[in-house]
Amino acid sequence: MNYASMSAAELTSMKEQLTAVLNEYKSKNLSLDLSRGKPNAEQLDLCEGMLTVLSKTEDCFAENGFDCRNYGVLDGIPEAKKLFSDLLDIPEKNIIVCGNSSLNLMYDAVARAVTHGVSKEDTPWSKLDKVKFICPVPGYDRHFAVTESFGIELVNVDMLPTGPDMDAVEELVKDPSVKGIWCCPKYSNPDGITYSDDTVRRLAALKPAAKDFRIFWDNAYVIHHLYEDKRDELLDIFKEAEKYGNEDMIYYFASTSKVSFPGAGVAIIAASEKNVAYIKSLMAFQTIGHDKLNQLRHVKYFGNAENVMRHMARLAEIIRPKFDIVKTIFTEELEGTGTATWTEPVGGYFISLYVNDGCAKRVWQLAKETGVTLTGAGASYPYGIDPRDRNIRIAPTFPKNEDLTLSMKILTCCIKLAAIEKLLETK
Amino acid sequence: MNYASMSAAELTSMKEQLTAVLNEYKSKNLSLDLSRGKPNAEQLDLCEGMLTVLSKTEDCFAENGFDCRNYGVLDGIPEAKKLFSDLLDIPEKNIIVCGNSSLNLMYDAVARAVTHGVSKEDTPWSKLDKVKFICPVPGYDRHFAVTESFGIELVNVDMLPTGPDMDAVEELVKDPSVKGIWCCPKYSNPDGITYSDDTVRRLAALKPAAKDFRIFWDNAYVIHHLYEDKRDELLDIFKEAEKYGNEDMIYYFASTSKVSFPGAGVAIIAASEKNVAYIKSLMAFQTIGHDKLNQLRHVKYFGNAENVMRHMARLAEIIRPKFDIVKTIFTEELEGTGTATWTEPVGGYFISLYVNDGCAKRVWQLAKETGVTLTGAGASYPYGIDPRDRNIRIAPTFPKNEDLTLSMKILTCCIKLAAIEKLLETK
Repeated sequence: MNYASMSAAELTSMKEQLTAVLNEYKSKNLSLDLSRGKPNAEQLDLCEGMLTVLSKTEDCFAENGFDCRNYGVLDGIPEAKKLFSDLLDIPEKNIIVCGNSSLNLMYDAVARAVTHGVSKEDTPWSKLDKVKFICPVPGYDRHFAVTESFGIELVNVDMLPTGPDMDAVEELVKDPSVKGIWCCPKYSNPDGITYSDDTVRRLAALKPAAKDFRIFWDNAYVIHHLYEDKRDELLDIFKEAEKYGNEDMIYYFASTSKVSFPGAGVAIIAASEKNVAYIKSLMAFQTIGHDKLNQLRHVKYFGNAENVMRHMARLAEIIRPKFDIVKTIFTEELEGTGTATWTEPVGGYFISLYVNDGCAKRVWQLAKETGVTLTGAGASYPYGIDPRDRNIRIAPTFPKNEDLTLSMKILTCCIKLAAIEKLLETK
Repeated sequence: MNYASMSAAELTSMKEQLTAVLNEYKSKNLSLDLSRGKPNAEQLDLCEGMLTVLSKTEDCFAENGFDCRNYGVLDGIPEAKKLFSDLLDIPEKNIIVCGNSSLNLMYDAVARAVTHGVSKEDTPWSKLDKVKFICPVPGYDRHFAVTESFGIELVNVDMLPTGPDMDAVEELVKDPSVKGIWCCPKYSNPDGITYSDDTVRRLAALKPAAKDFRIFWDNAYVIHHLYEDKRDELLDIFKEAEKYGNEDMIYYFASTSKVSFPGAGVAIIAASEKNVAYIKSLMAFQTIGHDKLNQLRHVKYFGNAENVMRHMARLAEIIRPKFDIVKTIFTEELEGTGTATWTEPVGGYFISLYVNDGCAKRVWQLAKETGVTLTGAGASYPYGIDPRDRNIRIAPTFPKNEDLTLSMKILTCCIKLAAIEKLLETK
């Protein structure tokens, strides 16, 4: 029954019941956490063999004979480039294989734009009065924080089921101070949306007023399918951009953080040859080379792209039941109540929950009081401000299944209670 | 016999002999390299056991139970902080343990100063008309290149046997646009000089006009002694700086690049608590954490600081004979000729060669033509310009002993020939 059609008396009665249930939970002094978008230990255990794949001195040499223990090789060992090339369908010449963090690569890409400009011909953003970035919302808080940390103004654009609202994006890029857009194009954080072909084409065809505009294409979940038979397909942004001579507009990022070890994976930046040459010319001041032994570990452990995909399927078997728990309990508890909607992605790491307007912070608080930590309400929006106070990111991968089930039962109570409180304000 | 006292005829005869010798070498089509300041394979082999010290899932947990495979821990695992703390005599609270490259940490420290300033209260250097950096010369080319890459003006100060010419430094810091100094205070690159107590005290006591002045204290060779019984001691810059309330003026860097694996070591930045808090507040935008598995590998392999020092003694046994080869051949071939002087460090990775004024580039060219690659003449000076064209950095660690011996024989011929050519110009 839709709560909006209930009488004040019915709502009050329901509120008392829900409060009683939550009080019961509170008495258990629970400490549950749905906030962390990170793999669980069982997933990581599957890569145990990577620890010893380099076990002797003679294992430490690249195919070209290079001693990976020593200094050198700024842009990554050739076989690591090939592995990523095969996985991502990007030519090796467009790939720089780096250290353990794609966030670090994104931060550094923004930092270089700020200090040096995005090419020799472009003005460093630090020399401009105003720089703005387009932030599809809800989105990844750490993306927004990178640009915010450099004093860049963040401009919201709504995420639609097809990706960012391209009408809004096309309008915004007429402003020459708009220098970039954050994109998580596949199984987006937090909605799990994959950009439609039309969205990718329109992004690739943008003609921004700022010629140093850059699309930050964080393909963090590119191979992170939950199902063998249901997979989103994402159009190749580079191939589309080339059609419009826009290949320099794309910075592409990916990593094995949610493939192998989040703390000890390998990250890449991919870009046009012109961009790669420029990035390397500045990166050469920053480091002599990234950890090549860890690159080699990944290459030797996985062997080839097909094995990586087999590994991803095993990871999916572990986390798919967790996504199912969330969807099942949401459906059972909330369907028809008019208190919430949620996304049902077929990949990635998150489910996006939309409660009634003005209720997200209250849901977060009620859950917290009951021992369930959620990602902060508003975290998926620039400056932490969700204009409608309705979105909460659900991260189901890390908790044990029984903890997740319990957390979801508590969360749905909180959602209902917050909705009722809101309804009673106007009854 | 000092060449300067020889007649033109004697010099000409000697020149012909040397040219004949070099031609003989040239006919062998040699390819020798004295330019690379990196460990040799035999040194790296000593750390083979580090490859497998984490071999099972249960090895991957920090002492506090943290799963080092996963995300988190921005500033390094506690036991890695303790290892560096014991090695460097710096409190753990002042240490941030990071990735594989201290150069990267130095670059990022300069980058933060440029984009954000060195503290919340300070102006980003990008907002200033002019920023200058003091560069003790000869010094490390990659230091100078970092600041040059940000458009910072590099100001030479001579290295004396006691370290940088402190009279000049004290004068320069009266200029508020002088924002920092590059220091390699122990077994300096390339001279192998360790700063005297007086130099460290005067640096620690500086009262620069710029309150955001920073001493970049790259203690790259802090434990890199060549002898058990002959070791330079370096005064503790933090303890000295504290006496003057100057502890915020120090950025301290170190790494295991020349302890374990150059490409897969662990680097740290150490600083005052105020600086550490500020650095972490910005680093938090850049990364979720560095490679903790590699930090743990180092901790578990070495166990404690004493074992690191034992390991360094074994490394010294491998490279000491190489330093001895250089010194012996220089002495045998050049002593008394008036064609060169050289440093005789008791630690570090380099020997600094000073040929006669105006001869370094010619020596480099002659050696190149004969199949010996040296570090570029001028490389140890800002902008690659050695004002007196006399310094060449000798890096003896990487070549095999027989190659090193051959290279040195060729090099000393080149030094003599270049000196004679110069003398003949004025005879």
